Amino acid sequence: MDGVRRGEVNVLSGILSRSDPRPSVLPDGLRVLRSGSATQGVLTTNEEFSAWLREREATDSMTVEQVPLDDMRGWHFSAGRAALVHDSGKFFSVGGVDVSRTGRGPRSWQQPIIRQNEVGILGLLAKEFGGVLHFLMQAKIEPGNRRQVQLSPTVQATRSNYTKVHGGASTPYLEHFLRPGRGRVLADVLQSEQGTWFLGKRNRNMVVETTDDVPVRDNFRWLTFGQIRQLLTVPNMINMDSRTVLSCLPSDTSGWLFDPLAGNGDCADPEFAFDLQRSLQASEAEGRHTDAEIISWLNDVRIDTAIELRPVGLAQLEDWELSRSRIEHRQGKHFRVIGVSVASGQREVTQWAQPLIAPCDVGLVAFLTRRINGVLHILMRASVEAGFLDVAELGPTLQCNPATYADLPPQERPRFYDYVLAARDNIRYDVLLSEEGGRFYHAECRYLVLECDAEPAVLEPHPDFRWMTVRQLMALLRHHNYVNVQARTLLACLHALW
Amino acid sequence: MDGVRRGEVNVLSGILSRSDPRPSVLPDGLRVLRSGSATQGVLTTNEEFSAWLREREATDSMTVEQVPLDDMRGWHFSAGRAALVHDSGKFFSVGGVDVSRTGRGPRSWQQPIIRQNEVGILGLLAKEFGGVLHFLMQAKIEPGNRRQVQLSPTVQATRSNYTKVHGGASTPYLEHFLRPGRGRVLADVLQSEQGTWFLGKRNRNMVVETTDDVPVRDNFRWLTFGQIRQLLTVPNMINMDSRTVLSCLPSDTSGWLFDPLAGNGDCADPEFAFDLQRSLQASEAEGRHTDAEIISWLNDVRIDTAIELRPVGLAQLEDWELSRSRIEHRQGKHFRVIGVSVASGQREVTQWAQPLIAPCDVGLVAFLTRRINGVLHILMRASVEAGFLDVAELGPTLQCNPATYADLPPQERPRFYDYVLAARDNIRYDVLLSEEGGRFYHAECRYLVLECDAEPAVLEPHPDFRWMTVRQLMALLRHHNYVNVQARTLLACLHALW
Repeated sequence: MDGVRRGEVNVLSGILSRSDPRPSVLPDGLRVLRSGSATQGVLTTNEEFSAWLREREATDSMTVEQVPLDDMRGWHFSAGRAALVHDSGKFFSVGGVDVSRTGRGPRSWQQPIIRQNEVGILGLLAKEFGGVLHFLMQAKIEPGNRRQVQLSPTVQATRSNYTKVHGGASTPYLEHFLRPGRGRVLADVLQSEQGTWFLGKRNRNMVVETTDDVPVRDNFRWLTFGQIRQLLTVPNMINMDSRTVLSCLPSDTSGWLFDPLAGNGDCADPEFAFDLQRSLQASEAEGRHTDAEIISWLNDVRIDTAIELRPVGLAQLEDWELSRSRIEHRQGKHFRVIGVSVASGQREVTQWAQPLIAPCDVGLVAFLTRRINGVLHILMRASVEAGFLDVAELGPTLQCNPATYADLPPQERPRFYDYVLAARDNIRYDVLLSEEGGRFYHAECRYLVLECDAEPAVLEPHPDFRWMTVRQLMALLRHHNYVNVQARTLLACLHALW
Repeated sequence: MDGVRRGEVNVLSGILSRSDPRPSVLPDGLRVLRSGSATQGVLTTNEEFSAWLREREATDSMTVEQVPLDDMRGWHFSAGRAALVHDSGKFFSVGGVDVSRTGRGPRSWQQPIIRQNEVGILGLLAKEFGGVLHFLMQAKIEPGNRRQVQLSPTVQATRSNYTKVHGGASTPYLEHFLRPGRGRVLADVLQSEQGTWFLGKRNRNMVVETTDDVPVRDNFRWLTFGQIRQLLTVPNMINMDSRTVLSCLPSDTSGWLFDPLAGNGDCADPEFAFDLQRSLQASEAEGRHTDAEIISWLNDVRIDTAIELRPVGLAQLEDWELSRSRIEHRQGKHFRVIGVSVASGQREVTQWAQPLIAPCDVGLVAFLTRRINGVLHILMRASVEAGFLDVAELGPTLQCNPATYADLPPQERPRFYDYVLAARDNIRYDVLLSEEGGRFYHAECRYLVLECDAEPAVLEPHPDFRWMTVRQLMALLRHHNYVNVQARTLLACLHALW
């Protein structure tokens, strides 16, 4: 621990200090960080949580069987086998699309893609117990989950869910996220999801604080942010929907200073933890680029790149084969579209069928980090994805499916691909996490955070990459369509490192 | 002047103070405010500016003649008179659209609308002279301008302009806004334009600071922000493109305090001026709503309202009549589409024709303001406009074409319509300003800012309205698609009031 740097942040108490000592209500960002220090639990001890989770795993179950796409009850192909649609015409559909990308790196291809126009709610309910913010997490099974029970936000509902298109029961706790009667909004942002699998999909990420009495159902538990932070190191435990909502939690401490080490002795790498918090509080002048320069760079990519989409029937897709049972790429790359029949004793409806996207391998997603002028920065990539509403968003340094590159020479692999695979001593985070199990089948990515201070290549200027402080990224997370879902996962996971 | 409030902001020098006295580079927001204090000019005196403007008005001219739509050289109707398109297939086109709005206030209608997919650049070049930021303003004539010469930003260029689709000369100073060689970016935001006249139109609003030597062409002059602020009180002087770029200027003073009255004795209402600056520096806790609550409210409107657009041929539009010469509403409401033939001795090309939208009356646009807990707030309306990329943006309290309501009973007029028309003593700003003369013919709006502390009705809760501080609005202007073009004009005009 570097004494000079501790001195700089002028820590007065164990947890908080402020250069301006006027009494004031704590900013929400600081209340979240304080909750993050409660790693042992307050309302639910870690032992109680573990016992509850074992019980959920023993009690809840879901039988998932692969069935041919033609045999999915409630689904049919539209005329000419153009698209796979739900009999209600709602929910979601799988169609084909022809993508032409012009500008830097022009190319074109065809692929199946999920269309889901409605905006769902990913809602996390918060409440203070004993002066500490708690979050109501749900043990939830999704048909695509390899690890069946994962922790989801309080509410994870498409509009079809809560308007009951597929005949299920009402969504518990939904009323806390709707007007009237909604509590205090801590965060509310429309965010994109996987732009390579979804066309224009967005979810509304909400964190709402209540002071109401909230009855706790069997498959829900109140956890501190500290407990959740630690669970982010357990493979396939915190689901994608939780991760994206957690990334949107308030982080602005409005001039208050926070010492991550004062309240928590469990941290694996105190220096990295300290530098993370310092980067979260870095002023604009401490960043490699100003906020305006970052947005300007993203605007350059958005203006210089054009994406043209043209609908194509599933049966007409080049390079893809549509059979009775599935849709798959002729070279076995990218993903398959499969059908599943689901039986559940615990979900809203007990029997249903649906298509799922099954990726052909485990994704590789990484943040490269390093100190620049003493402040930790993350190397962000402008990620152009066909399904985005506005061409490009900030993505992780690396985001790819390795199988796509297995037969290609090194120079055609993504930048930093070999570097990430070769990493050993500089790995700060390396956990396998699932993508959304309601749409994706056994979709897992290896999420990594690397420290790259010793690697000069990362400093080479490149039009697709920019270094940003954690504060800059967290500030952009308050607004729609800046940060993609893989980067949001890694930003949530950074909290596991302090 | 209220001494207690002066004391609160702890003014140490005539212009600047800071609670934390560490030496530091001035934040850009403060450099802009400092330039705003230079109302007498630095590089160009006000007398020199006036002489130059008179000279431009004497020298530059444009002959604009109305011609039938069928006779516009370079333009033709597509098959079935469906749309009016440029022979190059680029530039812009006028087509018809059927709009269905569901959710709160469902209704549907048809109208002509401009399609212009390409993103243009509205670029303002900045440079420091004598320690004061200056901005390179252009005296520019557009065919739709009633007052021919207006002040535009340094660069006002569609992509067709600068890739020379219509055969003009290259755009001066454009290189300062393109990579490589671009200077320091002070602002760069993709912003919407009139969503009732344009389909999905966006422009890139840029302010770039250079340290290069910049040759000054005859129709350009460097002005301080103080000079520009004062010109915002002259009818039809600062054009729409200037106003939207000016609204995006940096305003964050990062903890530095600014006394608007120390450097400027010209201000008409010192108390309002002081309260404006205080609202610009108000903390989140001083606002009626938190930042997250404002965004949450806008998300509610975006999710609860659906806009469906369906292309309709111009000849098939209900309620509109397409003749050889023009397109007009059968009841004479809304606007006409007319053709003009233009001859200019000063523009890139000397002769061209084009369609223009000619509104049927002078628009009425107003901010209602009042102090809430001592802090000045503006009443913003969630403005749902058919051409917006994302359903709704923050608009002024009132924004309408009075002719639309001339024959309707009072209860069907927009909220605060009669209140604004009846205003007398509480008017702080009231100036006629032009909309973009490159697309609109003699399109003017009366822009007003009213003080409404004495009016209890403005505090009645309403789902379409929220009170915001100036700081909250300015912060959202750093991001795309939050604040509509009429509200951006009024936010620029607020600077005329200190």
